Amino acid sequence: MRIKIADVSGFCFGVERVIELVEKKSKETPVDTLGPLIHNPVVVRELEKKGVKAVSSLKETKKKAVVIRAHGVPPDIYREAENLNINLFDGTCPFVKIVQNMAKKLCEDGYEVVVVGKKHHPEVIGVVGYTNGKALVVSSPEEARSIPLKKKRVGVVVQTTFRFDVFAKCVEELMRRAHEVRVFNTRCSDTDRRQEAAIKLAKEVEVVIVVGGKNSSNTRRLYELTEKQGVKAYHIESPDELKSSWFNGVEEVGIIGGASTPQKVVEEVVERIKSFEISHHS
Amino acid sequence: MRIKIADVSGFCFGVERVIELVEKKSKETPVDTLGPLIHNPVVVRELEKKGVKAVSSLKETKKKAVVIRAHGVPPDIYREAENLNINLFDGTCPFVKIVQNMAKKLCEDGYEVVVVGKKHHPEVIGVVGYTNGKALVVSSPEEARSIPLKKKRVGVVVQTTFRFDVFAKCVEELMRRAHEVRVFNTRCSDTDRRQEAAIKLAKEVEVVIVVGGKNSSNTRRLYELTEKQGVKAYHIESPDELKSSWFNGVEEVGIIGGASTPQKVVEEVVERIKSFEISHHS
Repeated sequence: MRIKIADVSGFCFGVERVIELVEKKSKETPVDTLGPLIHNPVVVRELEKKGVKAVSSLKETKKKAVVIRAHGVPPDIYREAENLNINLFDGTCPFVKIVQNMAKKLCEDGYEVVVVGKKHHPEVIGVVGYTNGKALVVSSPEEARSIPLKKKRVGVVVQTTFRFDVFAKCVEELMRRAHEVRVFNTRCSDTDRRQEAAIKLAKEVEVVIVVGGKNSSNTRRLYELTEKQGVKAYHIESPDELKSSWFNGVEEVGIIGGASTPQKVVEEVVERIKSFEISHHS
Repeated sequence: MRIKIADVSGFCFGVERVIELVEKKSKETPVDTLGPLIHNPVVVRELEKKGVKAVSSLKETKKKAVVIRAHGVPPDIYREAENLNINLFDGTCPFVKIVQNMAKKLCEDGYEVVVVGKKHHPEVIGVVGYTNGKALVVSSPEEARSIPLKKKRVGVVVQTTFRFDVFAKCVEELMRRAHEVRVFNTRCSDTDRRQEAAIKLAKEVEVVIVVGGKNSSNTRRLYELTEKQGVKAYHIESPDELKSSWFNGVEEVGIIGGASTPQKVVEEVVERIKSFEISHHS
């Protein structure tokens, strides 16, 4: 059995960056993270073992330093930290920072700001904060058609990991309703590259194992995309979920990790699959 | 046989305005028009009878005054007129003026300007002139995908009479390629209202007569749209093209005039159809 890892797999730039930040800072001073650092329970559990706790608000921490995760936060968190005398280490992904800045600029320039993304996603909550809560959030063309627009000048940003096709449809609906639609395509190119790698992989193998948090939307999307190619696909969080029966008679297996999946977990998955083969042959 | 006229039919705002301008000015002083005034041979022939000639360049006229038609012209025409000591009466449609101004502004603001429209349409030639010839013109998503973009900031305007669905697809392709796409939806609302009226009419009658120049793209589009509704449709320029056989056994006929079709021609069409009925009955 041949095992193939996708060309793009595991931590994206922003996740790698914030994990390095936590590792570095936690050696210097006790830190917590504001919210689970990434959408990956394996990583979050490991951090907990090291004493890095995911707190749901700044008031909850007992430490003097808190790490902002890659998703970013609304600006009032920075003010709150100052009031509480908490030192913030900002792990906001630079690509998310662009979304926040563009939303802020559009708002200041008098545009009706529309964020295309999931309303309850932490990244989107953070971005909306940069418009003083004024931005409207749409996640479907239907919503884009019906949200109440007060202005004929609409400024659009998009959640970094949002689907391009739905994003484009939302913009189309806004174009029907506004004189001017100023779109910043703030999607992260990693998302596309990873999705393309998933599709390519699915065409080359018989079974694809998608590794990543069940609560990670980018990982779930990888699973959907691979399955759509007609290949047998499984979405797992850890090697323990693998079943040897999935690989009976299979010659080529593909593996891809989501943007919040550590390379270590991907490697463990590879080892586990290899061990099935050995036990088959023995 | 009942004859129904579409809710929107005949001259649009811009055409009515320029025809009034020519009629008014030609009473004061001899004038020519730069290009055929509108895409309707009936109107153009009538103007010729009144001594208003359609010249293809300013050098061609022997008069001291020339009317700019609703489509507008590139700015160098205004300079040329000054040099030739020709008085220009500007009939550029105010909606086309917006396209020109927006293209100019986007160009000055450093955007790569893309005009969605037909490259050889006089309106588009005029608009491109307002970017010093720098604007790129696309009329299909394929072109939007392949034109060479030098910048990552793209400013988009659209020909007033262009199809919305193709326009939206072009913008979608540009969104794939640029960081920022700033779209001014410069389509004219008359186009939509007229098309909606055509669709409504087609659903209410058995035969639709679309009246307007064969060289008028908005009229051709009305014909396409009505035919798509499953009704029998004919595109004619003048009542002489009508055939009585089209109306055998027909109870409801609908008529719609293009944006450059005089109400008079529509009325003549109505009369001719009525005359068929009388001769049927006699």
